[in-house]
Amino acid sequence: MSNCSALRLNGPILLRQIRALGEIGADPVNGGRTRIALSDAEKAGRDQLVAWMNALDLDVRIDRIGNIFGTLRSAADQGDQAPLMIGSHIDTVTNAGALDGCYGVLAGLAVVRAFREAAVLPARSITVAAFTNEEGVRYQPDMMGSLVYAGGMAVDAALATLGTDGSRLGEELQRIGYAGDLEPGSIVPYEYLELHIEQGPILEAENTLIGVVENLQGISWQQVTVQGNANHAGTTPTRLRHDAGYVASAVVAELRQIARDSGGTTLATVGCMNFEPNVINVIPRKARFTVDLRDPDEQRLLAAEKRLEAYLAVIAEEEGVRIGTERLVRFQPVIFDAGLADEIEASAVRLGFSHKRMTSGAGHDAQMIARIAPSAMIFVPSQGGISHNPREHTDDDQLIKGAEVLLDVVVRRLNTPR
Amino acid sequence: MSNCSALRLNGPILLRQIRALGEIGADPVNGGRTRIALSDAEKAGRDQLVAWMNALDLDVRIDRIGNIFGTLRSAADQGDQAPLMIGSHIDTVTNAGALDGCYGVLAGLAVVRAFREAAVLPARSITVAAFTNEEGVRYQPDMMGSLVYAGGMAVDAALATLGTDGSRLGEELQRIGYAGDLEPGSIVPYEYLELHIEQGPILEAENTLIGVVENLQGISWQQVTVQGNANHAGTTPTRLRHDAGYVASAVVAELRQIARDSGGTTLATVGCMNFEPNVINVIPRKARFTVDLRDPDEQRLLAAEKRLEAYLAVIAEEEGVRIGTERLVRFQPVIFDAGLADEIEASAVRLGFSHKRMTSGAGHDAQMIARIAPSAMIFVPSQGGISHNPREHTDDDQLIKGAEVLLDVVVRRLNTPR
Repeated sequence: MSNCSALRLNGPILLRQIRALGEIGADPVNGGRTRIALSDAEKAGRDQLVAWMNALDLDVRIDRIGNIFGTLRSAADQGDQAPLMIGSHIDTVTNAGALDGCYGVLAGLAVVRAFREAAVLPARSITVAAFTNEEGVRYQPDMMGSLVYAGGMAVDAALATLGTDGSRLGEELQRIGYAGDLEPGSIVPYEYLELHIEQGPILEAENTLIGVVENLQGISWQQVTVQGNANHAGTTPTRLRHDAGYVASAVVAELRQIARDSGGTTLATVGCMNFEPNVINVIPRKARFTVDLRDPDEQRLLAAEKRLEAYLAVIAEEEGVRIGTERLVRFQPVIFDAGLADEIEASAVRLGFSHKRMTSGAGHDAQMIARIAPSAMIFVPSQGGISHNPREHTDDDQLIKGAEVLLDVVVRRLNTPR
Repeated sequence: MSNCSALRLNGPILLRQIRALGEIGADPVNGGRTRIALSDAEKAGRDQLVAWMNALDLDVRIDRIGNIFGTLRSAADQGDQAPLMIGSHIDTVTNAGALDGCYGVLAGLAVVRAFREAAVLPARSITVAAFTNEEGVRYQPDMMGSLVYAGGMAVDAALATLGTDGSRLGEELQRIGYAGDLEPGSIVPYEYLELHIEQGPILEAENTLIGVVENLQGISWQQVTVQGNANHAGTTPTRLRHDAGYVASAVVAELRQIARDSGGTTLATVGCMNFEPNVINVIPRKARFTVDLRDPDEQRLLAAEKRLEAYLAVIAEEEGVRIGTERLVRFQPVIFDAGLADEIEASAVRLGFSHKRMTSGAGHDAQMIARIAPSAMIFVPSQGGISHNPREHTDDDQLIKGAEVLLDVVVRRLNTPR
């Protein structure tokens, strides 16, 4: 490859594309944007991404689970070369910010653009990937596209997934025109890099620009269903109640205690809660809620799960209710590739950016791709640690510098033999 | 009036009508029936009731809030006679039993039927009333029809009420054809009687047939809204969270404690709970829930409200959230007419039925009508104390005997001067 020193990251275009994609699915009333996986709004986002890939004259391919790949081929690539892959996702939660996922995908395009603008070809093909349904709002598990891609879930099982709205993932994929023919996993990456906002408060709190992500905490998702008795709120003595809503609330309080007792390593969240019949003067017959437990240490994560299980047994007995649990997601902590992490740190040093080694608190597609290729992540600060929220923010110069680190790492790795 | 001894309650027809009305809005899948006030299903129930009133040749009138009145006129009634009123409601909660409300209205028809079948006229006109929206599922406050009728709420304010589905009560009333022209309250009852299932476990537990209801506990309904911060479940340290869902759950636990500490007189229920955005990996930004507090003693009810208020202030401070409360309903405890209660007890004695003086735990239309006329209630047992549930049940012979007590009381009161 000639003249790498000529490669420059085009910051203004990167920022413009982040803002343009952020306008798709935007909610003028509540703020933020909502592009739930395989919705009409997300289809519009996909169409915009593919248009930008075509504008860069990339080889665009869609696989059977709807993952989008845009490849800049090296001169040597006869279609048999393992590409260096840069990826993330463009689906969002409800009322999301503009950066989560999108920043990593569009920074990948910015890396490719640097080659196009310098009119040079990379020594190894570069593939920019946008994985399907990373957020897992409508279809679970989350990180589904990369999970399937890494062979962790059968394609047909994923396509058969029923959504919270009763829709079937495969049919929605057909509906929006992103049911491709490429077999997931058929493009095996040489290495995988993902640039992402931290979605946490650590880098900002420590006034550090670049997070060198060397591992990722384990994640345990469960759905808990409490079955009690509906009864009249005004006539049923407290001692005779089998109140599913009270039991669910007591579990939420216990989960907070589990998190407190861990000394800060275990995180516990109940994001979804639904009562039935959800009527003001009727004792809830049923309560369904989700439990999100995370810890960077597998043994501590297991301990938290066991403590929850034991508590559910105790309170079910005390309150005379039936409690069922369904495992939705379970990922062990992930250790990223040490060589790639060293490379990221070296690039930060070379560019004179403050940096620190850290753990990812959130789940990312990189943890799936790490099963099939050396992988690592680069973080930039999130203001106030806020994410999954319209107030999600990272300064423009931080976004550009993060992408410059990504470009520098890519250039170094292109010629690295293995 | 001639030959009162000829009056017999027709039990089989009463039971048939209870079952027939219970089929309207029935849910073959989940069981039970749903006739939310002013829904299509409830219109069908109203049409059936009016048809039965017409079959008894009653003078049927509808007032502006949709209350239905069917009057059997005495010979002396020139339209200026205050009738003895027997009433309740035919709207239901979701997946309700067949007895709540309907039993009292149809027992009123059974009393009138006894006169028709004996071909005698009562010494004083008898009006059977079905009051609008007693349950308050879609439109609040509950017991709205009788509240308006008793002058406790302006008709126009009631008609302007917005439902949980965004509909306007007055428009729904027009839509189903029950926006009458009678001014609410224009028929002032001489006395008011309401026969109802207990909806609680006391009569069954004490193997007693007739509840002589001498008072009714106070009711306090509030809507509580907790405003926290939406944030990423995997990256936000516990100490930095402003979790609206956790705060709501802690309040539910505190309410249970308030009920426990009262020694059983205070009842506390959270029937409705909603999280936003209600996404598995997002810390809830907002939680909205209802609080139903009841106590037969006004001072204890006030104390429970104050303790809740104080707890909300403390936890809002601790967790860094904003908490707002909105009063939905507040009714002080009601003392029913002692003379009527004595009459009910005397009838139970005369008929040889076991009986006990008791407090009504539920709210009933009688508590509203008590503002404008001497009122009292008669209870029969509820199996397992279960109500607002398809499993709501009272034995047929208990239903018939309760109606026989009602008929006996009516016959005694018709000739009582005041």
